[in-house]
Amino acid sequence: MLGSGFIGRFYAESILGQRSRDQIVSVYSRREESAKKFAKDYHCSHWTTNMEESIARPDVDLVCISLPNNLHEIAVLLCCKHGKAVMTTKPLGRNATEARRMLEAVEDAGIFNGYLEDLVYTPKFLKALESVKNGALGRILWAKSRETHPGPHSDWFLDLEQAGGGCILDLGCHCVEIARSFIGKDIKPIEVMCWADTQVKPIDAEDHAIGLVKYENGAIGQFEVSWTFRGGLDLRDEVMGTEGTIWINNFLRTGFEMFTTGKGADYVAEKAESNTGWLFPVGDELNELGYNHMFADVFNALEQGRAPKETFYDGYVVNAVLDAAYRSAKTKLWEPVQLDIWRGRTGVGKDSHLTEYDADHYLVKEEMTHYGAKKIILKNKTTGKITEQVIS
Amino acid sequence: MLGSGFIGRFYAESILGQRSRDQIVSVYSRREESAKKFAKDYHCSHWTTNMEESIARPDVDLVCISLPNNLHEIAVLLCCKHGKAVMTTKPLGRNATEARRMLEAVEDAGIFNGYLEDLVYTPKFLKALESVKNGALGRILWAKSRETHPGPHSDWFLDLEQAGGGCILDLGCHCVEIARSFIGKDIKPIEVMCWADTQVKPIDAEDHAIGLVKYENGAIGQFEVSWTFRGGLDLRDEVMGTEGTIWINNFLRTGFEMFTTGKGADYVAEKAESNTGWLFPVGDELNELGYNHMFADVFNALEQGRAPKETFYDGYVVNAVLDAAYRSAKTKLWEPVQLDIWRGRTGVGKDSHLTEYDADHYLVKEEMTHYGAKKIILKNKTTGKITEQVIS
Amino acid sequence: MLGSGFIGRFYAESILGQRSRDQIVSVYSRREESAKKFAKDYHCSHWTTNMEESIARPDVDLVCISLPNNLHEIAVLLCCKHGKAVMTTKPLGRNATEARRMLEAVEDAGIFNGYLEDLVYTPKFLKALESVKNGALGRILWAKSRETHPGPHSDWFLDLEQAGGGCILDLGCHCVEIARSFIGKDIKPIEVMCWADTQVKPIDAEDHAIGLVKYENGAIGQFEVSWTFRGGLDLRDEVMGTEGTIWINNFLRTGFEMFTTGKGADYVAEKAESNTGWLFPVGDELNELGYNHMFADVFNALEQGRAPKETFYDGYVVNAVLDAAYRSAKTKLWEPVQLDIWRGRTGVGKDSHLTEYDADHYLVKEEMTHYGAKKIILKNKTTGKITEQVIS
Amino acid sequence: MLGSGFIGRFYAESILGQRSRDQIVSVYSRREESAKKFAKDYHCSHWTTNMEESIARPDVDLVCISLPNNLHEIAVLLCCKHGKAVMTTKPLGRNATEARRMLEAVEDAGIFNGYLEDLVYTPKFLKALESVKNGALGRILWAKSRETHPGPHSDWFLDLEQAGGGCILDLGCHCVEIARSFIGKDIKPIEVMCWADTQVKPIDAEDHAIGLVKYENGAIGQFEVSWTFRGGLDLRDEVMGTEGTIWINNFLRTGFEMFTTGKGADYVAEKAESNTGWLFPVGDELNELGYNHMFADVFNALEQGRAPKETFYDGYVVNAVLDAAYRSAKTKLWEPVQLDIWRGRTGVGKDSHLTEYDADHYLVKEEMTHYGAKKIILKNKTTGKITEQVIS
Repeated sequence: MLGSGFIGRFYAESILGQRSRDQIVSVYSRREESAKKFAKDYHCSHWTTNMEESIARPDVDLVCISLPNNLHEIAVLLCCKHGKAVMTTKPLGRNATEARRMLEAVEDAGIFNGYLEDLVYTPKFLKALESVKNGALGRILWAKSRETHPGPHSDWFLDLEQAGGGCILDLGCHCVEIARSFIGKDIKPIEVMCWADTQVKPIDAEDHAIGLVKYENGAIGQFEVSWTFRGGLDLRDEVMGTEGTIWINNFLRTGFEMFTTGKGADYVAEKAESNTGWLFPVGDELNELGYNHMFADVFNALEQGRAPKETFYDGYVVNAVLDAAYRSAKTKLWEPVQLDIWRGRTGVGKDSHLTEYDADHYLVKEEMTHYGAKKIILKNKTTGKITEQVIS
Repeated sequence: MLGSGFIGRFYAESILGQRSRDQIVSVYSRREESAKKFAKDYHCSHWTTNMEESIARPDVDLVCISLPNNLHEIAVLLCCKHGKAVMTTKPLGRNATEARRMLEAVEDAGIFNGYLEDLVYTPKFLKALESVKNGALGRILWAKSRETHPGPHSDWFLDLEQAGGGCILDLGCHCVEIARSFIGKDIKPIEVMCWADTQVKPIDAEDHAIGLVKYENGAIGQFEVSWTFRGGLDLRDEVMGTEGTIWINNFLRTGFEMFTTGKGADYVAEKAESNTGWLFPVGDELNELGYNHMFADVFNALEQGRAPKETFYDGYVVNAVLDAAYRSAKTKLWEPVQLDIWRGRTGVGKDSHLTEYDADHYLVKEEMTHYGAKKIILKNKTTGKITEQVIS
Repeated sequence: MLGSGFIGRFYAESILGQRSRDQIVSVYSRREESAKKFAKDYHCSHWTTNMEESIARPDVDLVCISLPNNLHEIAVLLCCKHGKAVMTTKPLGRNATEARRMLEAVEDAGIFNGYLEDLVYTPKFLKALESVKNGALGRILWAKSRETHPGPHSDWFLDLEQAGGGCILDLGCHCVEIARSFIGKDIKPIEVMCWADTQVKPIDAEDHAIGLVKYENGAIGQFEVSWTFRGGLDLRDEVMGTEGTIWINNFLRTGFEMFTTGKGADYVAEKAESNTGWLFPVGDELNELGYNHMFADVFNALEQGRAPKETFYDGYVVNAVLDAAYRSAKTKLWEPVQLDIWRGRTGVGKDSHLTEYDADHYLVKEEMTHYGAKKIILKNKTTGKITEQVIS
Repeated sequence: MLGSGFIGRFYAESILGQRSRDQIVSVYSRREESAKKFAKDYHCSHWTTNMEESIARPDVDLVCISLPNNLHEIAVLLCCKHGKAVMTTKPLGRNATEARRMLEAVEDAGIFNGYLEDLVYTPKFLKALESVKNGALGRILWAKSRETHPGPHSDWFLDLEQAGGGCILDLGCHCVEIARSFIGKDIKPIEVMCWADTQVKPIDAEDHAIGLVKYENGAIGQFEVSWTFRGGLDLRDEVMGTEGTIWINNFLRTGFEMFTTGKGADYVAEKAESNTGWLFPVGDELNELGYNHMFADVFNALEQGRAPKETFYDGYVVNAVLDAAYRSAKTKLWEPVQLDIWRGRTGVGKDSHLTEYDADHYLVKEEMTHYGAKKIILKNKTTGKITEQVIS
């Protein structure tokens, strides 16, 4: 385990708790104190402040990178050097150039690589994706993912050099991969429009952004990310298809509601902004956020000699989309997504969805009016004229 | 009452039901049959297929325009000619040029004018706006309004000549005025970015669009509109401020849930896409959609000799924003909002919200970590360096 | 208007706001100061501390009783004496004996009488009842109503002599009439089982109670009432029928959610237990609680010379059910409802709902198993033996 | 694994999926075909139609009983005979007499015993219980659990001889243990009042029941169970305490909402009553229903040589409460819970919760009125008189 901060500890709890046969055998941290504490808390026999020492140990099968963004590449290259399987927290790189170098490095070295994008492993997402693939929503038109909260947990997120960006990079990477998964990972993202601003925090990076990602088949991905949201962690996805709709709320409204005056005890709610009044905890945070299903997939993939669902290639695609978003926020233009490596389909056009009504007309809409009549709206195939008829 | 279609009948039910002392004394419709039926249903003593005849009648105090968009201007000019108070359904014009002519006409004629934007009169919106004005949310950063459904009720909506546009004009006019109200009607909308496409319907106009409206104080308005949504009428607003959040669901999730196998009877649910399974009716549609509070305000305003909350001026501003959206959808650029007439504040800058921590630092964030420690993140005023400290 | 307290003011706001042509011409209060303030606030030309003086005034068409429970009978008898139409807040009497005397008095005097049970006039209830009557739920099996909050607004509620009881009388009267309406007002309530206790408040009356009301057709009504609930005003109804389900949330979850840190301003939320954190206001309290639709029905009924939906007779039936509940709470037995006056159906038996499958079997259930097989469960008509078959 | 039906397969999926190092080595089923299929599906090396053969196998460490209720005792006694650790699905017995015999048998034999009450292991329940134990809700006053659905999956549930009862035994066992856990497993259940009826199904057992369970400290447990509910699987818990409230929805409303016209594909939703319209799947059924956390606790307990959270003793207490419920449904009286074996506290009285205001008064309530005044309601310690004062 490289890194012993907030996300490292989260990962450790999932890794140790889930399958019960995996162990963390070595931890690296930049700070000795932090490494020691982590090693003690998670029964880890070795700790060090030398990254390569940890990676090189013979009892390490798989390296988990939970470091600030600017250290991902260094750690990945060391894994390549020592031929160790590697999994990296999101985002893969600070930009697509870094991500591409990491992708090429692991592929050249022929090592197992996993991209730890937990939010495409939440139980709700997995079930929703299955429904989408089964056709329950028809053709996908739009997929939005929103992640907003009151700001990150550690200082380095707020430092442009270490983080490489603000909430777009920190949160947008989740949202882009969620929308891309619903629309189809083989459909090429073409161009991005993004608004970003620093509205509240005294920082150089953006703390609020909204972006649109156009895909080759005409579908639209949307992300809404912010470090200025008040009220907790807002994690919602929405999908529109020609035959259906999906709404997912991963965190703030999951069927668990609690009111407390706070007089009963020193109750402290995790991640909430207050500990009195109406609170909305989740039952099992590691599960709701996808950590359990993610590590299960990665470990099973490693054992079975297959790739996990999310690899460095996916991390690279996400970085390329986010790079276009950053460019767009500056140029105020729709910016093309620059994907030098693309392994999906190409030349996918927009579907036509004219519904035949009779020889001369397309059906536009059937309608039950509020005063009880049934109406149909038709379009003449030749003239294009739109007319309505009351049927009954 | 000019017009006897879907919206005309909705208005009639609210007007007659609410205050119980208002009467519809004359109805004009382009089709005699429709005019007759309306007159009978709503106890209206006079009907005609001649618009001016209806407007000119001495017992008409206030003219209600419920006609297709392309007939608004004609009707407004006739009201000016006969000096009759007038209220017009939304949008005011097909574009800002039409809207401006109507605005100038009623102001030159000195007649009472109301803009029937019902969705800023829903009970939830009114209460939410009151909270925002009381400061419960602090400074407003972002206000989104979403209106999507499976498509309009009448043929003329789908005809570009009559309607002047697609779902942007039909639904976006609501969303723009909602966001503008939360952000402040005296804050100038500056520029608009809009994506629009025809994804499903066999029509020339757009059936899905997403837009961002930048305001002079740095706040962002967002609209999401579509005629391709499946599942009913989705009417939601969200507001983010520095001190709080508001989420409003006006229609599909209002605390009324019903499951029916459909075997019990020929039950037909209004506006829903199905009449079996889980259904989500609203209690009182006229009230939830704001019609009652809207007509109460307009009638009271007329009696008290004051302007209603929404006038032709507001309709003109909305049209100007939507014009920029249409331009943006074509040019793919952020398009400026062209407001020749602007009666709000100008030169409003972005607020600074640096929070003082001590002589040398700003406070970036206080944080309770998931392992129980309290942390603060600070920014050095001089160097800009961001650091964190564990407090306890 | 007799009474100028919490409920009197609520009524006044609805009466004056709704139809806009009704006026409160006289107010009586036991306290001069309160009468004066009410008169001023609601533009009421006459005030008095002499109840009969107010009732007898020639410009009073309809008397509205908003007094503590122990004063209802006195006020009703004065209305009878002066031949004035009367409407009374809930519950009608402190017990069925009082209620019956009031019922007989108004009927002997031949005066218009309305029972102000607002919660069967909420927009959601009205729509739900319409669905139930249309058969959307099939045969009604169970109807529950829950009203709980942190305790009443005025001292007299807590005084057994004035109130006649605790939360059963205060809140249970709503719940009983709601369940009775869904089950059918012509179906006789037969017996009641009730648990009641004083769990928290330092009072003699009960502050928490749960009751079951058995109806002649086998349906069950349920009430859950409390003055010890924390979190606001919890107003929920649930109905189960053979073909469907209804869930109504009238107050705490109606599609309006707000988070506020409280730093923005001295915002005070009505009726909530806190004014920071997540809050759940309703849009328009008078409408959501049924006041507007209730007074509209009563006034229209008076004008049209018909009885309103709820009369003293309904109040009497409710009091008879609550009397049985109070007896049951003491005796711990199912207590019969003593209804000397009953105007509904009698001798209604339980429905049989055997579903024919074939000549030899009834159908118990069709089932789709989680591993994809379709199963039916049958009961042999002769032997009663239950068997299952996998169909596909 | 004894039993290869619906619940056996559910268990198998959780056991194999969760820790990834546990194996099912033998399966017994009454039907050869079913045993074979189960063995094949879950990679189980041995199958048999002879129960003892399965239990006696040397590679079996822990026997999992997933059989109809009438076979639990036989299977438990065989486990005792062969000294095998055992875990049994709910309810433990068909009645407390059977349950007591099983409890005494495993304790006499000194074997590990687990009671598979999954619903006190759901992630939401575990988090809620932690909050309750931390005092977030103060003193617990009432705990309700509701489980209703359209009827059981297999024929034997509907056969009184095999099942021992109807929905009270099938579903009430969950509800009783949930409420008991919130109130405190060391607090003695004293007496039960229960209504039960067969309202819809053509069976001898009850298909709908409501019960109240009184505990020694004055707290009330409530269960609502039915096989006649329409709309899916309704699994909700509610808890009221002096300082707070908890509402849990385990299944039908968990933040996952899907609408589908059904035209997209042959989509089949698990456990739902329909596969079109609005559907409410859960993300991960095994997790949401508590199976994963339950088996983790049982296996960890077995490895660590401790008792699991739920043992046969708990199953016995639940059966004793349900026995009282069945008696009450017949006698219409509050029936005492007969607990010959009781290992919790005894003689626990009701708490007093008078709040001191000043030397002469208790505080009854503080109140913010809807017209803006702050009021307090007091009770005189000597006279008991209740008065109110407006503070500001």
